[in-house]
Amino acid sequence: MEKVKVIIWGFGAMGSGMAKMLLKKQGVEIVGVCDKDTSKINKSIFEILNIKQTGRKEVIIKKNIEEIVTNNYADIALLCTDSYVKEAYEKIKYIIENKINVISTAEEMVYAKAQYPEIAKQINSIAKENGVTVLGTGINPGLMMDLLAIVLTGACEEVNSIECKRVNSLSPFGPTVMEEQGVGIRPEEFYTRVNNGSLAGHIGFSESIKMITDAIGWKLDKPISQECNPIISSVYRKTPFAEVEEGNVAGVNMIGHGVINGEKKVNMIHPQQIEPELEGVNTGDYINIKGNPNINMSIKPEIPGGIGTIAMCVNMIPHVINSKAGLRTMIDLPVPRAIMGDMRDLID
Amino acid sequence: MEKVKVIIWGFGAMGSGMAKMLLKKQGVEIVGVCDKDTSKINKSIFEILNIKQTGRKEVIIKKNIEEIVTNNYADIALLCTDSYVKEAYEKIKYIIENKINVISTAEEMVYAKAQYPEIAKQINSIAKENGVTVLGTGINPGLMMDLLAIVLTGACEEVNSIECKRVNSLSPFGPTVMEEQGVGIRPEEFYTRVNNGSLAGHIGFSESIKMITDAIGWKLDKPISQECNPIISSVYRKTPFAEVEEGNVAGVNMIGHGVINGEKKVNMIHPQQIEPELEGVNTGDYINIKGNPNINMSIKPEIPGGIGTIAMCVNMIPHVINSKAGLRTMIDLPVPRAIMGDMRDLID
Repeated sequence: MEKVKVIIWGFGAMGSGMAKMLLKKQGVEIVGVCDKDTSKINKSIFEILNIKQTGRKEVIIKKNIEEIVTNNYADIALLCTDSYVKEAYEKIKYIIENKINVISTAEEMVYAKAQYPEIAKQINSIAKENGVTVLGTGINPGLMMDLLAIVLTGACEEVNSIECKRVNSLSPFGPTVMEEQGVGIRPEEFYTRVNNGSLAGHIGFSESIKMITDAIGWKLDKPISQECNPIISSVYRKTPFAEVEEGNVAGVNMIGHGVINGEKKVNMIHPQQIEPELEGVNTGDYINIKGNPNINMSIKPEIPGGIGTIAMCVNMIPHVINSKAGLRTMIDLPVPRAIMGDMRDLID
Repeated sequence: MEKVKVIIWGFGAMGSGMAKMLLKKQGVEIVGVCDKDTSKINKSIFEILNIKQTGRKEVIIKKNIEEIVTNNYADIALLCTDSYVKEAYEKIKYIIENKINVISTAEEMVYAKAQYPEIAKQINSIAKENGVTVLGTGINPGLMMDLLAIVLTGACEEVNSIECKRVNSLSPFGPTVMEEQGVGIRPEEFYTRVNNGSLAGHIGFSESIKMITDAIGWKLDKPISQECNPIISSVYRKTPFAEVEEGNVAGVNMIGHGVINGEKKVNMIHPQQIEPELEGVNTGDYINIKGNPNINMSIKPEIPGGIGTIAMCVNMIPHVINSKAGLRTMIDLPVPRAIMGDMRDLID
């Protein structure tokens, strides 16, 4: 059997991280990469990754997906370019019309129907017409604040409320994340940027909450509500890519709620900041389910976002290839798992 | 659409608990119950459960499955009679030959091919011939020491080792469990009973370990090894159904290992006892994954075994009905989840 053939669209931190992971795995090969960054175009992925090519096929980074898809057959494309459904849509459409499965890192694609039911229907129908599958996944949304809570409810006779809390550190991240999350800016700038849409904070509460409520059969009274507040540092904080003066923004605290029958039954709490331990904050993932039984889960420290997203996307490749055609979600497919053997052994 | 029709075979603590849970759910009805206990035969399930029948169909407990299957059509049977594959086999065969899906509580059925690959093949082929699905599940094996660990590896690029530790209390359980686990007996009797096979301790390490290793693609060097040791109490302990003198057995400590490439990479630790807090033992479920990243999960207190098994079996009903035919396992199906809406909404 031939190796599983993978295209990577977008060779930033996520796409290049997935490439590194794939190069360590058996039974899979990268057959094409594209990225709009001119400093990478026409270079070997091995040069960009600083990994020896030894024995592996050369892969030259192209500017456009058309240069890859016309030249190579692939089983799946990892689309690592966007956060929003509307931005990812045309790219997904192009890939699936070429009869290639897709895994997207776009947070909103984890549960596209939460905010864009019509686009979700279109993707589903184009995917079915072309006999391929589309999945959005990642660490969050995708696992920590949705799928994992859902799995735990499997042990419950009744569920009254679900709280997912992810307290993580932004310290390992680079300049893009610092900029996106407003790390280091003044509080007044924070609110200006939230209001003008240039500071989004975490993307995914709508998707996580709708995934949970659909999974367990709760009906939301109304669209979810969320708040995005600055974490004001009372100490000086510094990382290789960010510096926060006392009184400035160390990160973003987001909270979100899903209301069912007038009650806030699904609650999300997600503070992200650099150097949280400087103010005694311990990072971790926490899920608290009130029901029969109550379940109190903690993972300390938190599962890191970067590796976690890379791993989730790569590890779901076999499930997506095996799935029936259409737009699928993490609650439709078998559970994610690490791939320590030959990936081909996992293909039906 | 008609309600989902359920048969319950075995009306002990698990079967009657599932009946109580089902009676609280929408879109599902119990259409038949059988049990060999003469004190229950020919009685109404509502009498045995001490629940008012109001508006529900009467269900009289029969002695034999033949009396139910010939009279009623059902979508699924919950088989709550056995722990071992060899004991459950003929019953499963009877049900699936009557074209009814099965969920079995038998611990070994959670991953039947771990110890009985030939029987697993037979069940798979009979189920396929009859167009129905068979699943074994429960809280453990089924979730706490296998599926949940597998889900968490989904966030890992690499896994080096997995430790699952379940520290639970036997205090809520009745006389059957006390007898099976040797609670209250003297240490010398413990070893006699382990050696003559009348004290099994926890059943399921072979199944949990093989499920994990198959899921992530590790190959076991040899069958798993396990040890069953008494937890000797240094204090007096008492519950409604058991009494343990100082120096006697408060429960069973089991450990098990799966060896891969000469290393104990999958490790199970499962002490079960009454009143653990009397000696400062805090109950909980713990999963520690060494890899990239490391993951340290804890659930405190432990998810209770009784409710957990009841919930897992009932909550998996829609997935089993929706599944393609054959013998399936928890790693083949979508994730378990609570059912808070109408069960029919979950049937494809």
